[in-house]
Amino acid sequence: MELHGLNMLGGGPSPLPTEGDGFRALNPATGETLEPVFHDASPREIDEAFTLADAATDHLGTDRERRAGLLERIADALEGLGDALVERATQETGLPAGRINMERGRTCGQLRLFAKVLREGSYLEARIDHAQPDREPIPKPDIRQMHVPLGPVAVFGASNFPLAFSVAGGDTASALAAGCPVVVKAHPAHPGTCEMVGRAIADAIAACDLPAGTFSLMHGAGHGVGTGLVRHPKTCAVAFTGSFAGGNALLQESQKRSPIPFYAEMSSVNPVVVLPGAAAERGDAIAAGLQQAVCLGVGQFCTNPGVVFAVDDDATTAFVEKLGALLGEAPNATMLHAGIHASYVTGQQRLRAIEGVGHVGRDADDAGPGNADATPALFTCDADTFKEHPELRDEVFGPSTLIVRCASVTEIEQVVGSFLDGQLTATVHGTNDELDDAAALVGLLRDVSGRVIVNGFPTGVEVCPSMHHGGPFPATSDSRTTSVGTAAIRRFLRPICYQGFPQTLLPDELKDGNPCEVLRLVDGEWSRE
Amino acid sequence: MELHGLNMLGGGPSPLPTEGDGFRALNPATGETLEPVFHDASPREIDEAFTLADAATDHLGTDRERRAGLLERIADALEGLGDALVERATQETGLPAGRINMERGRTCGQLRLFAKVLREGSYLEARIDHAQPDREPIPKPDIRQMHVPLGPVAVFGASNFPLAFSVAGGDTASALAAGCPVVVKAHPAHPGTCEMVGRAIADAIAACDLPAGTFSLMHGAGHGVGTGLVRHPKTCAVAFTGSFAGGNALLQESQKRSPIPFYAEMSSVNPVVVLPGAAAERGDAIAAGLQQAVCLGVGQFCTNPGVVFAVDDDATTAFVEKLGALLGEAPNATMLHAGIHASYVTGQQRLRAIEGVGHVGRDADDAGPGNADATPALFTCDADTFKEHPELRDEVFGPSTLIVRCASVTEIEQVVGSFLDGQLTATVHGTNDELDDAAALVGLLRDVSGRVIVNGFPTGVEVCPSMHHGGPFPATSDSRTTSVGTAAIRRFLRPICYQGFPQTLLPDELKDGNPCEVLRLVDGEWSRE
Repeated sequence: MELHGLNMLGGGPSPLPTEGDGFRALNPATGETLEPVFHDASPREIDEAFTLADAATDHLGTDRERRAGLLERIADALEGLGDALVERATQETGLPAGRINMERGRTCGQLRLFAKVLREGSYLEARIDHAQPDREPIPKPDIRQMHVPLGPVAVFGASNFPLAFSVAGGDTASALAAGCPVVVKAHPAHPGTCEMVGRAIADAIAACDLPAGTFSLMHGAGHGVGTGLVRHPKTCAVAFTGSFAGGNALLQESQKRSPIPFYAEMSSVNPVVVLPGAAAERGDAIAAGLQQAVCLGVGQFCTNPGVVFAVDDDATTAFVEKLGALLGEAPNATMLHAGIHASYVTGQQRLRAIEGVGHVGRDADDAGPGNADATPALFTCDADTFKEHPELRDEVFGPSTLIVRCASVTEIEQVVGSFLDGQLTATVHGTNDELDDAAALVGLLRDVSGRVIVNGFPTGVEVCPSMHHGGPFPATSDSRTTSVGTAAIRRFLRPICYQGFPQTLLPDELKDGNPCEVLRLVDGEWSRE
Repeated sequence: MELHGLNMLGGGPSPLPTEGDGFRALNPATGETLEPVFHDASPREIDEAFTLADAATDHLGTDRERRAGLLERIADALEGLGDALVERATQETGLPAGRINMERGRTCGQLRLFAKVLREGSYLEARIDHAQPDREPIPKPDIRQMHVPLGPVAVFGASNFPLAFSVAGGDTASALAAGCPVVVKAHPAHPGTCEMVGRAIADAIAACDLPAGTFSLMHGAGHGVGTGLVRHPKTCAVAFTGSFAGGNALLQESQKRSPIPFYAEMSSVNPVVVLPGAAAERGDAIAAGLQQAVCLGVGQFCTNPGVVFAVDDDATTAFVEKLGALLGEAPNATMLHAGIHASYVTGQQRLRAIEGVGHVGRDADDAGPGNADATPALFTCDADTFKEHPELRDEVFGPSTLIVRCASVTEIEQVVGSFLDGQLTATVHGTNDELDDAAALVGLLRDVSGRVIVNGFPTGVEVCPSMHHGGPFPATSDSRTTSVGTAAIRRFLRPICYQGFPQTLLPDELKDGNPCEVLRLVDGEWSRE
């Protein structure tokens, strides 16, 4: 596939004028510039993308089976891109081929999972209350409800998962599953990967005979394109994965327009509590697991464990030494781009400048030809230092973590309860006996997070019905929804109530006899009958 | 019950200093001032209310059965207030005793309905995915999910339903059901009714041995109290029913703080389409139904049908004459307060000033001793006038409606598709043959509204599982949720995921063996087993 570098408008390369001078991707491992040139989408292109998307909404929203087929065909098409996709993605992200292949598997897996969700149909939350014409003092009408698509969705791809959270990632999959056309803002760090995936999606849409306006792809290196997508009057929802600064800036933009659902998954330090018995019993194993979690994807996971709380005792001293040694031995690795690496370096400098914060392990060394190679790092401080310095609660995006030595489990509970912001995840390691007494601590971890993990690690977000990838602000802008797992489809739906409808005008899912065999709440009872 | 006029802090009269000079309720039918004096809540009272609410959250959130008992006991207590409540509410609102009694029945009914929802448990959306320790390349952990309360909720009571949308109304019932403590902003037009209901709630909380911080009641005649409730850092969600101006002002306030769910049900003209066959076949009956819907509650319903589209033919001429005659004969009736009446008069003047808008029926006459008696009104215009004057899309709160005469059904579709804002409801009247061809029109009505009604009237919002009382902005600030019906509980919940948990640490609803017998999605299958 030869990349054209153009924005994609409803299935094909955009014929409209673009904005600005253009930009190229860089290989962060080598510093090499990658062809072709990409151009920021112009206001006309953005407007046309949403006009096409709006026109596609009705058709796309009506046929669950066809949408299920679309999702499966997109998955097939992504697999059909073969090694060419891996090659471009590794060049643009510095991530190894094995990781890209695994991520493609996950991306295709979640597309196919949403196809199952569509066919199963309970996500529609169909409800029926039959009429009671003889009710006194007034008759009860026939009332039925199900969920319908919101309309066109603006999706912002993330840099750290160039497939699973990008053009055909979770937000696109769940929005298309819901029946919403999608306008994707391509991430400027991997525009070629975005184009390849975008063309695969467009081909699948054409093959399924769905409207071309179902999907458009807008490139943009500056802020203007993102602002334009959020503020377009036909945008019915926004889904973003990325930094707090980026998400919060778009949130502010969204507040300048009529209210729409705004879903940003932003920043989290994913606190880990190591209870003293666990530290004594298996401190080395926990250190080994943490080292892996901290270094996974060069620390560029939103679930990276960035703060670890432990009781200041001999076992913790040994645990810190072990973790320091493991991180000290871990090789440098290439981050997604020089900008993220620079932020990582700045973040470490910020920590080191705080009195009471110690650095364990080797100093940062050669950043490589692309100025993007990161050195893993471990920091330590005591609880007072953590309480006094709110900046220690901020995410340092990269292979780094901070151990906070507390006087007691009670102090850990106090810090968790009063000195943490909202988180995607929170983890506790304990012995069986410790866990038996951990209800209060788990309650505190639950209050600040969206997922609580026992004796595990937060990285590795399983894609399944029970996954919740969300959490209180600033982890996300809306703690009520998830960006991973089947419940994500709910982000892009709203209920509609049909009152007094003849059978012919009802959607099939709400007709008498349940021809679609979906789960429905009929006169207060759940049933597929 | 002797009214004390004090704000209520966690179960009792507030001992803290209040703000401002105080205010009294007025009887809109007589103009008479009602004792006692009420005082705006002070910032200290607001802070204390949320501090108590925050402290109550954990206890309130854990015990579904106890919360179900609380809701039932509140209903009993409202009934126990007997005629005293009716007397005060009629004095403060001008609404007749029969209406207040009916509204109390509805209020108690929805409290008891939420008790059932709590015991049934499917609202928790429990999900379980069992571990697969042998999965390759990485084991799958045990993952479980259910919904938990958001935390303290600020509820703004509406003036037009002094019971069903006020202190113990739908928002309070659904928030308490969800497990969220509530701080209610009393409506200054019926503060005595608010105190009576608030004290009944506080008594029920004490009787159920739940924390006193579960409920507080803040009075306020000015904007400061509302702003204080929305901006308090411990406020986790806001629910408002009222005018667009009021809801939008609070929405702006909510955007100055960390993002929280903000639910405002604001304004809607609830379009009604009368197809030509229906107008010819039963124009008189539709006119009679419309007159009742327009005048119900002196037009002070959020589902009041404010705009009617019909084809400009002889049947419509007869229909307009009939409706004009019925509205012309309808007696004056007392609105909620002189301020609402003044807005109603201004709204009518706005319509009459537009060239092309005609007024049918008698002119407004004596506004009564309370300056609040409204004269029903009917206006007419053609489609071009409606298209040219966006102000004709604005709600006129009161017993008034506007007939828009269109050249054809196609023109009706065009106006519905392009010249309407978001609505709570949309209605179509047609013959069976007309409805067979009405899919496109119904699709357009669906796109702009939350509930579509066939051959009925939008007033009378049934409280049941399939009801959706919501709609696109500006009808509400969040089209994803409802303020009436059992699904309203979802407004105040967020999902939590438990990964790798031992049975002892899991909530009962997620334990193996399903001891609570709630509906759960287990490994992809819905089950109560």
